[in-house]
Amino acid sequence: MSKPKNAFYAQSGGVTAVINATACGVIETARKYKNKIGKVYAGRNGIIGALTEDLIDTSKENKRAIAALRHTPSGAFGSCRYKLKSLEENRREYERLIEVFRAHDIGFFFYNGGGDSADTCLKVSQISQKLDFPIKAIHVPKTVDNDLPITDNCPGFGSVAKYIAVSTREASFDVASMAKTSTKVFVIEVMGRHAGWIAAAGGMASDKDTDIPIIILFPEVAFDRKKFVARVDQLVRKHGYVSVVVSEGVKGPDGKFLSDQGLRDAFGHAQLGGVAPVVANMVKEDLGLKYHWAVADYLQRAARHIASKTDVEQAYAVGRAAVRMALKGDNAVMPAIIRKSSRPYRWTVEKAPLDKVANVEKMMPKNFISRDGFGITEKCREYLAPLIRGEDYPPYRKGMPRYVRLQNKPVKKRLNTRFEV
Amino acid sequence: MSKPKNAFYAQSGGVTAVINATACGVIETARKYKNKIGKVYAGRNGIIGALTEDLIDTSKENKRAIAALRHTPSGAFGSCRYKLKSLEENRREYERLIEVFRAHDIGFFFYNGGGDSADTCLKVSQISQKLDFPIKAIHVPKTVDNDLPITDNCPGFGSVAKYIAVSTREASFDVASMAKTSTKVFVIEVMGRHAGWIAAAGGMASDKDTDIPIIILFPEVAFDRKKFVARVDQLVRKHGYVSVVVSEGVKGPDGKFLSDQGLRDAFGHAQLGGVAPVVANMVKEDLGLKYHWAVADYLQRAARHIASKTDVEQAYAVGRAAVRMALKGDNAVMPAIIRKSSRPYRWTVEKAPLDKVANVEKMMPKNFISRDGFGITEKCREYLAPLIRGEDYPPYRKGMPRYVRLQNKPVKKRLNTRFEV
Repeated sequence: MSKPKNAFYAQSGGVTAVINATACGVIETARKYKNKIGKVYAGRNGIIGALTEDLIDTSKENKRAIAALRHTPSGAFGSCRYKLKSLEENRREYERLIEVFRAHDIGFFFYNGGGDSADTCLKVSQISQKLDFPIKAIHVPKTVDNDLPITDNCPGFGSVAKYIAVSTREASFDVASMAKTSTKVFVIEVMGRHAGWIAAAGGMASDKDTDIPIIILFPEVAFDRKKFVARVDQLVRKHGYVSVVVSEGVKGPDGKFLSDQGLRDAFGHAQLGGVAPVVANMVKEDLGLKYHWAVADYLQRAARHIASKTDVEQAYAVGRAAVRMALKGDNAVMPAIIRKSSRPYRWTVEKAPLDKVANVEKMMPKNFISRDGFGITEKCREYLAPLIRGEDYPPYRKGMPRYVRLQNKPVKKRLNTRFEV
Repeated sequence: MSKPKNAFYAQSGGVTAVINATACGVIETARKYKNKIGKVYAGRNGIIGALTEDLIDTSKENKRAIAALRHTPSGAFGSCRYKLKSLEENRREYERLIEVFRAHDIGFFFYNGGGDSADTCLKVSQISQKLDFPIKAIHVPKTVDNDLPITDNCPGFGSVAKYIAVSTREASFDVASMAKTSTKVFVIEVMGRHAGWIAAAGGMASDKDTDIPIIILFPEVAFDRKKFVARVDQLVRKHGYVSVVVSEGVKGPDGKFLSDQGLRDAFGHAQLGGVAPVVANMVKEDLGLKYHWAVADYLQRAARHIASKTDVEQAYAVGRAAVRMALKGDNAVMPAIIRKSSRPYRWTVEKAPLDKVANVEKMMPKNFISRDGFGITEKCREYLAPLIRGEDYPPYRKGMPRYVRLQNKPVKKRLNTRFEV
């Protein structure tokens, strides 16, 4: 029997609280099939590591370190924002990938990312055949944006959703306590430039047990200051306070981001602000209400300490499934999460062809947003509920979560060629 | 034996993740001494509830609901920002308090708050004797600002400290993953207008196990843009990235808050921004580095989901001690946390005289801040370490923390007088 081919794994784009759980799934599963997969090499800083032949030898990491990836947020091998151009525009890059893969006897390509990386993965699969170095290219889904098609949801999203739902509930309790004499409006800004998935999760802060007045500002709904302020006024009159969950991607009627207010400091320098202070300021100007605002930013997608158990399990499962699919001979596919039932929640992982995944953005269904544009529907709740279910706490030492840092030892270079990215 | 006197309990000022744990300690302990304490009435929205005779009958809440206060953030009875003036300026308010206490047969006054409420509590004790209605007035410490004297630390602070330390670690892992091609500087804004206790906690994100390049901007240290930018540059060159923890109270050399930049929108309207975007923008202007920034705001003090176990235990303990002190006949005192040893951590609760507590602000010791002004010393670490120790997770249902809401049933009014606050 010939020596088994090695595997290449890379993390792409914005990282999440559970992308390392996927890496854990890939590496632990590959290690179970040592007769079929050689070593797993990871790209240092994502695909850039492949282009520059900067590979990490994950076989140097012990079992315990790899297991600890499951509870460690961020990208253990480094990620990058680097979109490969189309084959026509930059064939050189794809050829370079194959050159590096050939030099290191790579037979499996696992690319862990969002829509762009699905496209790259598909192209790598195509060109590898043309260049007569066929490899099994599997895209492994990851994105807090939750915008990949076919898969019911994307690993990474469930944990952000849980973080935003929990944080919004907690802050709402706080503002409710203060509302009599002080803050009456709390604004939290959340990620999601194109779609309101994460903002929708803020709606889960309120449920039948714990009713909370919440206004959600979705990127899907053109912002109308008058309507918004009227709704704030109405809810503050009724409940004494209100929480506003605003997506960073909210646009005004002019189609421009609401956050892009052309802010200038006293010296006339441009200042980049978030959308939360802009919205909060409107509440003050129009209603004279005292506000507080928060911008969660990276905290939301890095918050492994409050990750969703469903999300961690699915992140691991798609990593494991990716390896199994590759071993079965699948190529140019993505392990997709298929929901079989919401109550009780049942799901499986099935393969989706990459040409159906690449370059397709899944938007929030219209019937997930309430008619007034400020809330979520029962359908949306049914969708989100299982994704935030369960806690999966990391281990702690002296009060702090123990997140692993790998040694990330380099694989010896075999090519003498430099490649500029 | 005469009927035992009732107790009055009120929450004051900004709420915390554990102030309800103190309420739990007060109420559960009082219920154990039914022959000595009658009912515990709570002020609806703090001391305003006493002034307006808007009292809540906590005896209507069942055991389970009171127990759940221990894991519920915010102020269950409502808090307020309402500082009673001095006796000379507004004797009427103090007399009114006594009038209400007299009407409801209150013999014990438990006031749960920071420095201002310690002062109020002391005055209530004084005037009650003058008006020949002596009550036992106990101040119960609470403040995320950690600035009360005598007590080693203030309930509420440890949980914020843990939240900031954990969040900074998580976000730092995130930015480290992205730094090769994207974000290199992450800025997190934390509370603390006058003292850098909370900012200091950001330094705990980095330790011997998990080294992270962190710059802390303290309100105690005048901000020097040149020095700050040089330090960012140095750390990014060395580590590839840096995290900046900035206190909302940081001031420039002109003595003005750095956040107060006189921001104007495109229409010339004043905009209130945080200090995080201001600092982040400097990094971009001076070094051209890509940044992300977060403002934790209420999230940090409401984050019961990641509360410190030490903090929860101490919050409960000061509530319990307050009742025990009152029963022993103590008056005008505060249960203070006394540290007996840092390693191993041992503490007790002892009484501190209120006249030594009121109107004294405890600042960070100079030797807690590193010589360059950007970090914390070993001494500071030794102080902070036990305060963030241990996890104390709330119960969850369907992925969400189950925080209790009390019924807050009113006590029947006995006075026919209105009182305007």
